[in-house]
Amino acid sequence: MTPERFQRITSVLNKRQPDLTVITDEVHKGRNLSAITRTCDAVGIDTIHCVMPEDGYQTYNGTSASAEKWVAVQHHSSISAPVNDLKREGFQLVAANLGDNTLDYRNVDYTKPTALVLGAEVKGVSPEAAAAVDYNVTVPMVGMVESFNVSVAAAIILMEAQHQRQQAGLYDQPRLTADVYRARFFHWAHP
Amino acid sequence: MTPERFQRITSVLNKRQPDLTVITDEVHKGRNLSAITRTCDAVGIDTIHCVMPEDGYQTYNGTSASAEKWVAVQHHSSISAPVNDLKREGFQLVAANLGDNTLDYRNVDYTKPTALVLGAEVKGVSPEAAAAVDYNVTVPMVGMVESFNVSVAAAIILMEAQHQRQQAGLYDQPRLTADVYRARFFHWAHP
Ligand SMILES: C[S@@+](CC[C@H](N)C(=O)[O-])C[C@H]1O[C@@H](n2cnc3c(N)ncnc32)[C@H](O)[C@@H]1O
Ligand SMILES: C[S@@+](CC[C@H](N)C(=O)[O-])C[C@H]1O[C@@H](n2cnc3c(N)ncnc32)[C@H](O)[C@@H]1O
Repeated sequence: MTPERFQRITSVLNKRQPDLTVITDEVHKGRNLSAITRTCDAVGIDTIHCVMPEDGYQTYNGTSASAEKWVAVQHHSSISAPVNDLKREGFQLVAANLGDNTLDYRNVDYTKPTALVLGAEVKGVSPEAAAAVDYNVTVPMVGMVESFNVSVAAAIILMEAQHQRQQAGLYDQPRLTADVYRARFFHWAHP
Repeated sequence: MTPERFQRITSVLNKRQPDLTVITDEVHKGRNLSAITRTCDAVGIDTIHCVMPEDGYQTYNGTSASAEKWVAVQHHSSISAPVNDLKREGFQLVAANLGDNTLDYRNVDYTKPTALVLGAEVKGVSPEAAAAVDYNVTVPMVGMVESFNVSVAAAIILMEAQHQRQQAGLYDQPRLTADVYRARFFHWAHP
């Protein structure tokens, strides 16, 4: 490994945020999952949780930059497993959701341990997830179309989280446990 | 037309921002152009400018919500035409660009008349556009992948513009000229 590569990998690992994650609630298009993963990498997310759609994922043979090597994915067969696990670990749950009685997405404190739930392309967030989360948040829209693409909504909300965390100094010190740091380092350094 | 439809169309037209636009600099994937258009609609952009790639657009037969009816598109054969026209009309030009000597995207005043230049999927922003703009701005990234998908970068920057404009009250009064307002109304009201 070149010194530049070593330097790059460690500087990225030093900014990883173990207490920020995403749960995709039956998002099924591979293209959207791929774009979401790429954005997760960009804001320093280490692991994401994907709830499998009933009729499976729709594969994607695209050419866009892949982030799958850099973000760990845990697959789940239902939303209750990651929701319960993350609650037990002290995460607040925030669903990106359209509709009434939601907060503006900027009015949440994302410096707390946070899991962002993203809804499926057509069905949106499941009623089960919407009821289980601490907050349902909406990105304001002033146009004719009713919703953003899910990967776009994810990026808008995650950049707000990134901004708040940057201001709070959460990217200034390494935050992964030594075990996770080492595991990621060896996986990434492997050609 | 139902009263609800009339109400919806006029409330969207009352928030349109004639002095905010996007120039796609040879962005070629139809899927990306479609996602960019959807986000433009959501933040109140009336017209966008697309510079055609040398080898044409790559068509997209996707199923995502289409915003093409709600956002006017002007096609150009080179970047110089929209750049010169918009400069003459008093727009500041801002390119979303990677690399050194760029500003953080939040450090620009988007309440001024603004055209956001977006680069192509592989080549990025053309040297001609990068030289012609007033500012090159970067969305900070702390991951292993070098860039965002272009439609994701567009959404992040346009939501910053939307936020600044909302705080400045630019969505509080109708801002389209009477002629454009009328033209859009009849186009949108037509089934
Ligand atoms: C295409 S939307 C789903 C639309 C679906 N018809 C509905 O009513 O929820 C897919 C997902 O993107 C996210 N999303 C899209 N636009 C959003 C917005 N304006 N605010 C918050 N989340 C949004 C949500 O997680 C949503 O479930
Ligand atoms: C996939 S990127 C192009 C990458 C290309 N290899 C380059 O070096 O420019 C496509 C476009 O998305 C926008 N973009 C992507 N990531 C960005 C970021 N972090 N900051 C600003 N713009 C970005 C830019 O307009 C860029 O030209």
